[in-house]
Amino acid sequence: VVQSGALNALVVENPYLVYAKISSLLYPPEKHQPGIHTSAVIDKTATLHESVSVGANCVVGAGSAIAAGTRVGPGSIIGDNVTIGESCHFVASVTICSDSVIGNRTILHPGVVIGSDGFGLASDGGKWVKIQQIGRAVLGDDVEIGSNTCIDCGAIGDTIIEEGVKLDNLIQVGHNVHIGAHTAIASGAAIAGSARIGKHCTIGGKTGIVGHIEIADNVHVTAMSLVSHSIKEVGNYSSGTPLQTNANWRRSSVRFKQLDDMARRIKVLEKCLDDKNDGN
Amino acid sequence: VVQSGALNALVVENPYLVYAKISSLLYPPEKHQPGIHTSAVIDKTATLHESVSVGANCVVGAGSAIAAGTRVGPGSIIGDNVTIGESCHFVASVTICSDSVIGNRTILHPGVVIGSDGFGLASDGGKWVKIQQIGRAVLGDDVEIGSNTCIDCGAIGDTIIEEGVKLDNLIQVGHNVHIGAHTAIASGAAIAGSARIGKHCTIGGKTGIVGHIEIADNVHVTAMSLVSHSIKEVGNYSSGTPLQTNANWRRSSVRFKQLDDMARRIKVLEKCLDDKNDGN
Amino acid sequence: VVQSGALNALVVENPYLVYAKISSLLYPPEKHQPGIHTSAVIDKTATLHESVSVGANCVVGAGSAIAAGTRVGPGSIIGDNVTIGESCHFVASVTICSDSVIGNRTILHPGVVIGSDGFGLASDGGKWVKIQQIGRAVLGDDVEIGSNTCIDCGAIGDTIIEEGVKLDNLIQVGHNVHIGAHTAIASGAAIAGSARIGKHCTIGGKTGIVGHIEIADNVHVTAMSLVSHSIKEVGNYSSGTPLQTNANWRRSSVRFKQLDDMARRIKVLEKCLDDKNDGN
Repeated sequence: VVQSGALNALVVENPYLVYAKISSLLYPPEKHQPGIHTSAVIDKTATLHESVSVGANCVVGAGSAIAAGTRVGPGSIIGDNVTIGESCHFVASVTICSDSVIGNRTILHPGVVIGSDGFGLASDGGKWVKIQQIGRAVLGDDVEIGSNTCIDCGAIGDTIIEEGVKLDNLIQVGHNVHIGAHTAIASGAAIAGSARIGKHCTIGGKTGIVGHIEIADNVHVTAMSLVSHSIKEVGNYSSGTPLQTNANWRRSSVRFKQLDDMARRIKVLEKCLDDKNDGN
Repeated sequence: VVQSGALNALVVENPYLVYAKISSLLYPPEKHQPGIHTSAVIDKTATLHESVSVGANCVVGAGSAIAAGTRVGPGSIIGDNVTIGESCHFVASVTICSDSVIGNRTILHPGVVIGSDGFGLASDGGKWVKIQQIGRAVLGDDVEIGSNTCIDCGAIGDTIIEEGVKLDNLIQVGHNVHIGAHTAIASGAAIAGSARIGKHCTIGGKTGIVGHIEIADNVHVTAMSLVSHSIKEVGNYSSGTPLQTNANWRRSSVRFKQLDDMARRIKVLEKCLDDKNDGN
Repeated sequence: VVQSGALNALVVENPYLVYAKISSLLYPPEKHQPGIHTSAVIDKTATLHESVSVGANCVVGAGSAIAAGTRVGPGSIIGDNVTIGESCHFVASVTICSDSVIGNRTILHPGVVIGSDGFGLASDGGKWVKIQQIGRAVLGDDVEIGSNTCIDCGAIGDTIIEEGVKLDNLIQVGHNVHIGAHTAIASGAAIAGSARIGKHCTIGGKTGIVGHIEIADNVHVTAMSLVSHSIKEVGNYSSGTPLQTNANWRRSSVRFKQLDDMARRIKVLEKCLDDKNDGN
């Protein structure tokens, strides 16, 4: 029962938050029965708390440990030596690669892949040689990861997703990326290897973040931007061009290629007028 | 057997359509035997028509109903209370979350996720509070969804994909999105929450569509555009910049940042020449 | 044991390559026991070499053949008539559709989909008619494919990934695409149908490549570019605009729409000054 006094106080401050809290009161996450479905394949060296629920056709590898109250949805595959916290919910069909570490109350939606190999290659006379990816993917508490999002393990050292981070669907997180606490990233973003994103950031959908850069805390990037260098100042950032009719866009687009020439011609005109003025 | 008279008539009108029709005559979708594979796990409260085929290692949840002639490929996971129409084909490894509704003759390719939670968060002093996602994902008849595409359920109300919509691979459809009948969207597009796309639209690959906007019927957007506001007029739309050599692009790119300054300097030059002309 | 003489020679040439080679010496891919897990469902007409390992809850379809030393991770689904080479490693949860051909030493990460239908549609008075996709997806030797990446089968003829190609996570490869040997493509790129990419190219993350174009050998495209036409010359290519503060970007963005007008006004100013000079 929500007390109306408390409710009113909240409404004044932050109606969206109240809505969130009411939604959880009215529609609490469904209860589940603990137990291991008979079709699940659990390695005999895995350690599952007695209150854990593992759905149909799941696989849990050797040496993995699952803490109290966690629910592993049907069709999920958990590799060897994975550590999983309390009260997690892996909805269905998630894949967690070996050696990953998952915090408490983590929610993983279908198709999520945690801890797969990063894209590490060295060139050997034009052929690519694989760099073994020996780090881990480590997720803090209260992390939520959307459907079909991929988080690579570290090359050396770990990929780290701090507590309270929320990732939408179809996001790529490269090896050794570090995402600070309570940062939220919208669908389709891709973060290249070793990028470091601060705390309390919001990153718009389909944004690209290149590798080996740093983004400060409290930075906000709008949808479909390319972050090609470090961002050291708090603030809002963007790239891209505005939507136009195709006919107008073609004209702008041709001129974009001529921009440097246009800038030089403006300079010449200014010089020319200056000379005239001096001549007068 | 294709009668040559009918064929010739068609060829004149629309050769690509004829090719499509012939491809289905020559290569009809493979036949399948009805039946439930012994490794599939079907909840005893699920209702499957006797002509349904369910492949190896599938899971079908409580209260779900699958109509005549539908084929569920191996490794698919269907949640509770899912309603599935006639003659659907879920190729393999699809995940349909609880309460989703799937129309007749729907084709879902591998890795598709239907009805997972949308990205609904409220800020509570810098921490994110989850908004329970209680709506459904509802797909009309004759919808086809490409591999690893994600369609979120509604936050409140439903996410709706009308009849005849075709989605390519790796597309994101956010919560409460509405896609009008016979719209086709190419790979890698992302549609943010509550966007409403009209009928008979085509959306190019990797296009981003921000949330809470409307796109009219018969709108066409070219690849990799960002639709940042509503589109009310029929037509073709684009954003982005053209490909250049990296050296030339760097020059254009620097000037893009100076565009406002350039525009002001042109204005000053015009004023200056006007004054001169007046002075003559 | 690495001999220090050979090692020193390598260090001088290419330290990153040495690191790659050492990583494989120190962390060799884990050994696995051959054998078919009891929960795997293998069609009786499939042919598996005795040294093959098939994990828990896998499915292998009719007529498929898996060569020596290949390891199929848990939860993988392999369709009918799939041909798989020697010493492959499918980590977990991969889906390979019927009739695909996979070369030797291929690595497929979780969620990969090989050989699903391409996006082939013909318009029939506003409704879409499916074009049956009857070609195959054919991967050469030493190919590595990242998590949740999709490679469509050919419409007619095959989609071809030549030897040594490396694809990162969440990439789309459309029907009848041809990727030349030893090309590497970063996460989130999408390659539309029938595009042909040369050998030894590198394609940056989130890059879009439109259909039916050709890219020469040794071409390098930076992240988040749109390749909208064929590239015939070796070199580095880019598109997009630089990141700015949102306030500055809004100004640049408005001016982008006015670019054609700005260019015309520069021309008028030049004409005007020329006339004045002639007049003097």
